[in-house]
Amino acid sequence: MTESGKPILYSYFRSSCSWRVRIALALKSIDYETIPVNLLKDGGQQFSKEFQALNPMKQLAIIEYLEETRPTPRLLPRDPKKRASVRMISDLIAGGIQPLQNLSILKEVGQEKQLAWAQKAISSGFNALEQILQSTAGKYCVGDEVSMADLCLVPQVANAERFKVDLTLYPTISRINKSLLALEAFQVSHPCRQPDTPPELRA
Amino acid sequence: MTESGKPILYSYFRSSCSWRVRIALALKSIDYETIPVNLLKDGGQQFSKEFQALNPMKQLAIIEYLEETRPTPRLLPRDPKKRASVRMISDLIAGGIQPLQNLSILKEVGQEKQLAWAQKAISSGFNALEQILQSTAGKYCVGDEVSMADLCLVPQVANAERFKVDLTLYPTISRINKSLLALEAFQVSHPCRQPDTPPELRA
Repeated sequence: MTESGKPILYSYFRSSCSWRVRIALALKSIDYETIPVNLLKDGGQQFSKEFQALNPMKQLAIIEYLEETRPTPRLLPRDPKKRASVRMISDLIAGGIQPLQNLSILKEVGQEKQLAWAQKAISSGFNALEQILQSTAGKYCVGDEVSMADLCLVPQVANAERFKVDLTLYPTISRINKSLLALEAFQVSHPCRQPDTPPELRA
Repeated sequence: MTESGKPILYSYFRSSCSWRVRIALALKSIDYETIPVNLLKDGGQQFSKEFQALNPMKQLAIIEYLEETRPTPRLLPRDPKKRASVRMISDLIAGGIQPLQNLSILKEVGQEKQLAWAQKAISSGFNALEQILQSTAGKYCVGDEVSMADLCLVPQVANAERFKVDLTLYPTISRINKSLLALEAFQVSHPCRQPDTPPELRA
């Protein structure tokens, strides 16, 4: 919290985890302040003592917390089976794809192999996801209402594009991603429009 | 569901993801039937057509679904901040540690490097977790009630032991793990007591 009571988001413009939370904040019209944490500079500012001391929360926990304390508009459907679908998709992306292709893992894998590694992680996740969406999707990932699953989808598709994954193989994912990117909350939260976005990447 | 209406769990005795769900089912006294899925046999039965067709859910989504449909005893505290702590810890383990050291990733990493890789993934996660627990733990991960976080902890500690991680570095994790293993739900769900546990690993 800032002195004026605004929540603070520790954020990196290009991090898909930060982007998810920014979308949730935008959808729920929650005003917040950004403190940029550059994941590359100084060997990774997230490893600094100040930041470690904050006990950074995993991002789905933040979104579930926002949902419980600021329930409107809802990001989890009322129906338990649909909620399970939303969480299944969110988990698949946030637990099954993103952690396998994040910065620290790619560093571990090494320069030479990292592109192929990231592509494989994303493709096998997207193969499963494309299939799941056949039975859950409407306009968005689960039915016709924007949910936590959609907050996870869009940043992951952006990563897929960065790693040059062939998205024509995933027509449902691509269609939903396009619909979501037309919404204001997904635009204001976009990596190309953040306080810490470098000038050459702004749009 | 079986014909008699019992839920079916597709389970592998040694999978930490299956174990989490087995603990939840035991705590909530839900009777179920196990269909074993051997993650090693036949090149991995989870890749078979029958299994893929089931759209296997990610396991935290199953636990959240059980919580919503069978709320007693509760696995998420009533207080939103405590719930956030439970989800943060669950995510840290189920999204930040386990996916980095699961079978398919270790295969990818290769025989030679896999022990060091798994140890590093677990240690960096446990370093963060040990610190977080300083401010959340009571008898268990969050306060004195068993929660979803504890369901994630115990199977992950068992993996740490398999990969010979030095657990004396994590006194809080070790203490909580020991208290949990004394509870019946953690014992009946243990990998050494499952229908598909090979005779030589039974206890």
